[in-house]
Amino acid sequence: MDSEDGFLSALRALALDPAARGLTDDAAVINTAPGALVLTHDTMIEGVHWLVGQNPADVAWKLVAVNLSDLAAKGCKPVGIMLSYMLGTAEWNASFVTGLGEALTAFDVPLLGGDTVAAKGMDAPLVLGITALGEPLRRPVPARKDACVGEAVWVTGTIGAALAGFEALQSGSKDCGESIAYRRPTPRLAEGRALAKWVGAMMDVSDGLMLDASRMADASDVTIAIETGAVPITPALARRRREAMSWGDDYELLFTLPEGSTPPVEATRIGKVQPRGGHPLLLDGSPPLSGSALGFRHNARVPGK
Amino acid sequence: MDSEDGFLSALRALALDPAARGLTDDAAVINTAPGALVLTHDTMIEGVHWLVGQNPADVAWKLVAVNLSDLAAKGCKPVGIMLSYMLGTAEWNASFVTGLGEALTAFDVPLLGGDTVAAKGMDAPLVLGITALGEPLRRPVPARKDACVGEAVWVTGTIGAALAGFEALQSGSKDCGESIAYRRPTPRLAEGRALAKWVGAMMDVSDGLMLDASRMADASDVTIAIETGAVPITPALARRRREAMSWGDDYELLFTLPEGSTPPVEATRIGKVQPRGGHPLLLDGSPPLSGSALGFRHNARVPGK
Repeated sequence: MDSEDGFLSALRALALDPAARGLTDDAAVINTAPGALVLTHDTMIEGVHWLVGQNPADVAWKLVAVNLSDLAAKGCKPVGIMLSYMLGTAEWNASFVTGLGEALTAFDVPLLGGDTVAAKGMDAPLVLGITALGEPLRRPVPARKDACVGEAVWVTGTIGAALAGFEALQSGSKDCGESIAYRRPTPRLAEGRALAKWVGAMMDVSDGLMLDASRMADASDVTIAIETGAVPITPALARRRREAMSWGDDYELLFTLPEGSTPPVEATRIGKVQPRGGHPLLLDGSPPLSGSALGFRHNARVPGK
Repeated sequence: MDSEDGFLSALRALALDPAARGLTDDAAVINTAPGALVLTHDTMIEGVHWLVGQNPADVAWKLVAVNLSDLAAKGCKPVGIMLSYMLGTAEWNASFVTGLGEALTAFDVPLLGGDTVAAKGMDAPLVLGITALGEPLRRPVPARKDACVGEAVWVTGTIGAALAGFEALQSGSKDCGESIAYRRPTPRLAEGRALAKWVGAMMDVSDGLMLDASRMADASDVTIAIETGAVPITPALARRRREAMSWGDDYELLFTLPEGSTPPVEATRIGKVQPRGGHPLLLDGSPPLSGSALGFRHNARVPGK
């Protein structure tokens, strides 16, 4: 599998949905019903969003999972994905296709189309992207902006599992189980669909609980007050609570519900929605220390640095 | 505009369609009617798909145009685009947004959402992608695979204008007009819609007329016989006919019609569809020289080379 054509042949074996047109056309064609379609895109860069040398099958899985996580946060059933793929070595490509196939099967989502490109030379980091499409179960589709004063704030699963997994992977631990939360996250698709009709605001926790909560607060023009002791932290990080809350990659769902309601899925109440104050986020009643990182941000290039 | 937040603010001023949710949510939400939606994705890499040092506003325009060209080939009205953006320098980002806004206005297509990422350091080539969505005017949506024996083969516009423009740009010509076909191609959206109900097969010429015609032939299981003297070549390349036919970036429409029909748009008859022979493509009755490049192809990475 040492050329674009070889890679495309392997992809075609995965793209069996009629909408993909066998990956032999310029475009995919999906059927639509009256209603809405949700669109999201996430791009990942070698050395930024995954470790150089990481298993390409895991990278493929994660690329699919992080996109489907956004659909989960909108209460969607996945409709399909479009892949933007930068060719790596033949071995890399082959392993990537294996992981891609595993993820598509696990999450029952078809590959519809995309584009394959190649950088010049070996030095450029690989850049991979997916646009995912989903069919929402509720309209209006859940949004970040609908957190209302008086609601309670909830989160699914535990926070910090990805950070613990990342550290296990970096340390070269042979125990693959430890790193799986980082390598192969599971988007909360079933939970998102179950929650869709009940939630106020909903989003996934991809860039860190504190940063994402402050984004929800900004979008809703409220303040979100989190009781840090209530946040369900992975046991391995029990003493690094704030760090776990500022790391990303957990792909849990953060949502609001009327006070007193109980969600239809396993989740933990971690705070409440208050009238907008001087800061979008309060931790145990106080704003985060100024200058402390709330989560993952990108920075533009600065020439000469 | 020296951070992700700054760039996003500039993008938000362009993303006024309600479907974009102000770029403050995890996803875009479009309304759908009973029917179909066409999806396409094209990615471009600095130094591969555009010249290092080229005007970022032109890069933005071209990124939009090449994606809309695929929608044109499917006879679609554009519905919107999702942008995958790797941050450059502040100046680069600002110029890119200007060109993006110009293209969105020129082609009347809304920005719906996307993702912004940053590579580590300054060395990585920028990688940019767009997923474009379109509403087809005809169903079944025109495809590459529907060329029928006995049909005539047509192409819009002229072939080679992009190559001539590329050479003008590389030579540092001060005459911006010469290079515009390369820098700011115009997708044949109106032509694609006018043609949709009449054509057999249709596709855009993005990777070179000969390569794209042979792809149409392969998809349709026919042979396409081109009379090279009939191909409308840009005057500047009159003596480099084959080279112009193997270069890409022209974004004209290649289509088939029943013999004797006249297309409803300006176009030139360049050949005919024959029963499948030993080669997908015939040029003046003979297959292309073996080993000659028919068009633009990507190659996977080969370690150590």
